Amino acid sequence: MGLKYDVQYKRGDTWSKLTKVGVTGVRKPVAVGRKGVNSTLNGVLNCSIDIFVDLPADQKGSHLSRNVEVLRDVVEESVKTPATGLENVASDMCKKLLVHHEYAQTADVVIRAEYFRESKTPLGRNTLEIYKLLAGGSVARGSGVRKTIGVEAIGMTACPCAQQTVSEVLGCAGGIPIMSHNQRNVCTAMFTMDDDIEMEADEIIDIVQGAFSSPTYELLKRDDEGQVVINAHTDPRFVEDVVRKVLESIVGKYDRLPDNVEILVKSESEESIHKHNAFAERTATLGELREEYRNRTLIR
Amino acid sequence: MGLKYDVQYKRGDTWSKLTKVGVTGVRKPVAVGRKGVNSTLNGVLNCSIDIFVDLPADQKGSHLSRNVEVLRDVVEESVKTPATGLENVASDMCKKLLVHHEYAQTADVVIRAEYFRESKTPLGRNTLEIYKLLAGGSVARGSGVRKTIGVEAIGMTACPCAQQTVSEVLGCAGGIPIMSHNQRNVCTAMFTMDDDIEMEADEIIDIVQGAFSSPTYELLKRDDEGQVVINAHTDPRFVEDVVRKVLESIVGKYDRLPDNVEILVKSESEESIHKHNAFAERTATLGELREEYRNRTLIR
Amino acid sequence: MGLKYDVQYKRGDTWSKLTKVGVTGVRKPVAVGRKGVNSTLNGVLNCSIDIFVDLPADQKGSHLSRNVEVLRDVVEESVKTPATGLENVASDMCKKLLVHHEYAQTADVVIRAEYFRESKTPLGRNTLEIYKLLAGGSVARGSGVRKTIGVEAIGMTACPCAQQTVSEVLGCAGGIPIMSHNQRNVCTAMFTMDDDIEMEADEIIDIVQGAFSSPTYELLKRDDEGQVVINAHTDPRFVEDVVRKVLESIVGKYDRLPDNVEILVKSESEESIHKHNAFAERTATLGELREEYRNRTLIR
Amino acid sequence: MGLKYDVQYKRGDTWSKLTKVGVTGVRKPVAVGRKGVNSTLNGVLNCSIDIFVDLPADQKGSHLSRNVEVLRDVVEESVKTPATGLENVASDMCKKLLVHHEYAQTADVVIRAEYFRESKTPLGRNTLEIYKLLAGGSVARGSGVRKTIGVEAIGMTACPCAQQTVSEVLGCAGGIPIMSHNQRNVCTAMFTMDDDIEMEADEIIDIVQGAFSSPTYELLKRDDEGQVVINAHTDPRFVEDVVRKVLESIVGKYDRLPDNVEILVKSESEESIHKHNAFAERTATLGELREEYRNRTLIR
Repeated sequence: MGLKYDVQYKRGDTWSKLTKVGVTGVRKPVAVGRKGVNSTLNGVLNCSIDIFVDLPADQKGSHLSRNVEVLRDVVEESVKTPATGLENVASDMCKKLLVHHEYAQTADVVIRAEYFRESKTPLGRNTLEIYKLLAGGSVARGSGVRKTIGVEAIGMTACPCAQQTVSEVLGCAGGIPIMSHNQRNVCTAMFTMDDDIEMEADEIIDIVQGAFSSPTYELLKRDDEGQVVINAHTDPRFVEDVVRKVLESIVGKYDRLPDNVEILVKSESEESIHKHNAFAERTATLGELREEYRNRTLIR
Repeated sequence: MGLKYDVQYKRGDTWSKLTKVGVTGVRKPVAVGRKGVNSTLNGVLNCSIDIFVDLPADQKGSHLSRNVEVLRDVVEESVKTPATGLENVASDMCKKLLVHHEYAQTADVVIRAEYFRESKTPLGRNTLEIYKLLAGGSVARGSGVRKTIGVEAIGMTACPCAQQTVSEVLGCAGGIPIMSHNQRNVCTAMFTMDDDIEMEADEIIDIVQGAFSSPTYELLKRDDEGQVVINAHTDPRFVEDVVRKVLESIVGKYDRLPDNVEILVKSESEESIHKHNAFAERTATLGELREEYRNRTLIR
Repeated sequence: MGLKYDVQYKRGDTWSKLTKVGVTGVRKPVAVGRKGVNSTLNGVLNCSIDIFVDLPADQKGSHLSRNVEVLRDVVEESVKTPATGLENVASDMCKKLLVHHEYAQTADVVIRAEYFRESKTPLGRNTLEIYKLLAGGSVARGSGVRKTIGVEAIGMTACPCAQQTVSEVLGCAGGIPIMSHNQRNVCTAMFTMDDDIEMEADEIIDIVQGAFSSPTYELLKRDDEGQVVINAHTDPRFVEDVVRKVLESIVGKYDRLPDNVEILVKSESEESIHKHNAFAERTATLGELREEYRNRTLIR
Repeated sequence: MGLKYDVQYKRGDTWSKLTKVGVTGVRKPVAVGRKGVNSTLNGVLNCSIDIFVDLPADQKGSHLSRNVEVLRDVVEESVKTPATGLENVASDMCKKLLVHHEYAQTADVVIRAEYFRESKTPLGRNTLEIYKLLAGGSVARGSGVRKTIGVEAIGMTACPCAQQTVSEVLGCAGGIPIMSHNQRNVCTAMFTMDDDIEMEADEIIDIVQGAFSSPTYELLKRDDEGQVVINAHTDPRFVEDVVRKVLESIVGKYDRLPDNVEILVKSESEESIHKHNAFAERTATLGELREEYRNRTLIR
């Protein structure tokens, strides 16, 4: 069939550039060969992908099917040679997008996937926990790709303020940690950086899990359940504390990363005492965080 | 314009009845004149409505626009004369559906709406809390309408099992209630009954709120926050306990309701120590519940 | 640590049975060895699982951690010996639940998972499409397990009524199919049956896909896109038609299934001309459907 | 009760600023006195509100209950004197936040609400349609508030590319518009600007509705349904076209607005031929758009 011309290439009727044109919510399985991870459980990640390019002012439409072709190619390559990480998949997609859309100046990709990982309860039993992996890429023609790697993890926070209030009201004196309200917390940490920097999602999961009052677990027998409650109340934390603990771990751990790495950390508590949520967020470059950290010593 | 015939009435190609055909997710404002409630805040309820009839085996389609006409008529009437409750709105819709769909033998309506109500914190401050109203109707041609009235409320549960385990582990002796995990709980209670029975959603809200370890509040200053935590830990409850407390209140309060009232009560805790939820549910007629209650005395 | 007794076993304070007590939204990877399916893509299914037992009137609580232990055991077994289908996983879980909860009389399991499958576009290009697998089990102590197998698939419907109206308004005479509104449709088909009946989810996907005006595809180049549009408008269908086509395929294909198989088929169109959805559903036993089908010949 | 001190004010342990700390998903009814709108239906808007301030590096926590107090006060004022628009409510909240949080340097508010409006079908019948109102505010201490006003509306798009392909494949010659795929589209337009600029949400709804291939309607009898289909296929539009038509209307209509007004327009089509969505977005200042518009004449 000889189709005449693409409506998308039509010119003359338009005058405004578009920042992002593409497809959202494409579901794709991506084979990923992570080191040291149970390959049976995470050999293939079920991804939800958003993929965009910009559009010049004088062209009617973007060729959306080319975006899906880029997705298909990268996924098929991953089946032959497992990808080294979703952030590298996103980066590859960005580069291919600028090839396939010869008129585009920028490309953006966002990937989300579920991820299982083995964990140990406080008393040492094995459990399998679920996390979300977040990855992305962004490029302007002529520049290098900036890629994003991050995780979303669920944990538990106990409130320091209510704990102190209860202690004052009931006249408790030290010893055993006192009751407080505690709740499910969702914490996200994301790094955006140059394409050639290697990071592991598992490291970020460890950092985020270490920032809760306690991690949470699918399977808790009575003694483990009691220990999780004790642990959480021994280390009560606001959403603010969760974000700051993640920031502290990042500044402490990543000496090798350059100042221009962009960091986003957010924590949301599904409050047990309210019908709404509590929220805290920090966005900064690693350089800005390092400067704040250095200033810290001066203040004290 | 003289359109010929409705494709929907076409006959001869089909052989299977359909149980429900209709529209879902229609958004409509319904004016409701509840007694004793702040009419500024709840004079109009924003409803999401699902509305269905059945379809005989030999007719191609149902006239879906007639469903939306029924919705429009009932809503317009409510603006002139405020409805006496969403369950009566649903019942009215059911009756009209069988008139407009002359081929239908059954009609079903489901309505959900947000609802604000003033409340008092433990220390007596005013707050405004949000609930969901649930209503419905169901009718078979030749029979009376059965209507549903219910609520969904959010509260807090503290776990009795973890509280006891912590007490044993730490060797606490009585006195002050001990810490436990606690979390946001969503509890639903619904009554399905004959059309001429009157009930108030506010009563059901009171019953459900009384079944949590503690209600929750939008606005809590420090002393109130501490009191909510103390209250919840003084009355720890499983999801099972929440459902049973609602059932107990229903059996205790509604002597005037007949045995054939159908009850559904469910409670779901968004666990703070797990990434998943805990759930309990009871479905029964009021007659069945009464019999279980009578047997209770015999057991003890 | 010697913990004293389980609060859950406490007796004497309660009088009402509970229909379902358990956990919802547990995420687990399950290794499934489906025949003839790309094992790289679907060797492990990411499942969301709800799992319940009932609770007798005189016992305070259900041991929820036992539910999660059942999940863990079945998942670990699947890693060693891939399961033969999610419905068999659900059935296994039901049996184990009654062993672990010695006080329970019933057990219920619901599983949902994403599933990828290769498909061909109208012009023969390969694509990879996403579906949802639905599975479940239900058992009463002393009876056999009833298990559920089903799928949710997304396709496209074009409206027969609008097509005819447009034809009348514009005075079109036959030949080329005329424009209509068309939209995304989500169709679900589920079979509930005795434990020893074998079925394949892929068969049900084929049945559901054949009931749309056209299947849909991730990747469509221009000629394929045009063909999908032509195909859909050549075979316009109401939500009612989608459900009935699935029912017809089931009655035609499954001579080997007994009359007591329960069928649920539903179709929901995210209408392009409305802000709400259109919906049709049939629930029936296979025996009831067969009787309606036999009566069909008599009517005509 | 004399509580000692707020944990939130604790100093010395922290070193990192937080960008946003607050509460999300607070539900509040706000009385709004819009001009010329049916006050029965929209006299009170059910709002979902997110409200944040920043937090200095050396302070442990933000007083979240003060955020909820600000919400309560503004809502209570609205009951006495109806607000002139949600964007002014958001702006008020921002100013009060900086008063109540004496340590904060910035404040941010986001409000979403459902909104009903009467509309006319193509053949002149009355319908009632639902929209989402979007509003917000943002302020840095010492600067004026920037406020946001916007809407989200649902309409219909028919695809120009598939329409042309079908025309070529079937060899159609002009006359009647040819079939294409069409689908539900969600389009958002938002203006961020200085506090003293007045705009009406109804105007923005008109602009967005005018950018679809056709608006959609709750209630369409057959002749109106046919006309909507004909209208949509007479004016096929990509997601790109929808965004650009909104931008064109904005540049054409708002001579009175200054160059520093920030514009965000996005359009997402829930594709009928795919399982994923198509998406287009433009972010720009009004000044940038005006310059692109002026350059348009030069190009042609």
